[in-house]
Amino acid sequence: MRFVARVEVQLRPGIADPEGATIERALPALGFDEVHGVRAGRSFRFEVEADTEAAARTRAEELAHRLLANPVIEESHLELVAATSEVR
Amino acid sequence: MRFVARVEVQLRPGIADPEGATIERALPALGFDEVHGVRAGRSFRFEVEADTEAAARTRAEELAHRLLANPVIEESHLELVAATSEVR
Repeated sequence: MRFVARVEVQLRPGIADPEGATIERALPALGFDEVHGVRAGRSFRFEVEADTEAAARTRAEELAHRLLANPVIEESHLELVAATSEVR
Repeated sequence: MRFVARVEVQLRPGIADPEGATIERALPALGFDEVHGVRAGRSFRFEVEADTEAAARTRAEELAHRLLANPVIEESHLELVAATSEVR
């Protein structure tokens, strides 16, 4: 079976986020006074071939935690769906 | 009320994704033969002050579509939750 995985990689709380801070500083001049706490991260989507959803999840989590995120400063969050349904 | 928004920005289907392609080419040598179709994108989290969830969603969508994504080549996807509950 083929499963669709979606991984969100975010900086850990407390780690400085210059990109998010820059966006937040620009927002009031662009008319978005009511937006705060901007954090920037990365996202990935990919497909995993596996016999079961549990196996696909294990492999996708290995990939997310070992290769897509830098575990020293980042945390990753995985969502998994069967490829027959839509992620979004 | 304060709402937590999560935005995922992905390249539109058909737009070349060199970062995703590079990751995908590296995966077999790293032991991930069963992973295909890697697409790289960006993610953002922020908080929106608004009276209602509908108002917060409208503002967050404006921000996501106008400023966080380049609509020529990217599409953005918004998820919104009340700040009292957790996004993940």
